[in-house]
Amino acid sequence: MKKAVFYHAGCPVCVSAEQDILNIIPKDRVEVVHLGIDTTKVQYAEDQGVQSVPALVMPNGNVLHINFGAAIEDLK
Amino acid sequence: MKKAVFYHAGCPVCVSAEQDILNIIPKDRVEVVHLGIDTTKVQYAEDQGVQSVPALVMPNGNVLHINFGAAIEDLK
Repeated sequence: MKKAVFYHAGCPVCVSAEQDILNIIPKDRVEVVHLGIDTTKVQYAEDQGVQSVPALVMPNGNVLHINFGAAIEDLK
Repeated sequence: MKKAVFYHAGCPVCVSAEQDILNIIPKDRVEVVHLGIDTTKVQYAEDQGVQSVPALVMPNGNVLHINFGAAIEDLK
């Protein structure tokens, strides 16, 4: 089964949301990408519709923006 | 284990997010509350920190606002 991808950038809002998400979603269902480290993936995330982090991109392509930590533009 | 509570109000953004959330979070870990129907719970949700729906209130009390469907004020 395709995994969801949780994008974040290490900001406090992101880290808090990451812990919450990983507590409730089975670990084999979600991959975590740190855009502050994997900067090559920023453009890919944006192409998928991620406008801010933290965000969860579902296997069906839907993007769930969770609270607001940072705009994707600020990660470029 | 205490469940997370997913609050929504039946709006298109809510329903889409609900399907995504319920697809990825095990059903025994999350309770769904429709604030458009359970209007008595609007104040309770707001007291928990819900500012807009859809929102997921985690067992630890953290509130994850997911995208934006409607402001809690508009549900009163």
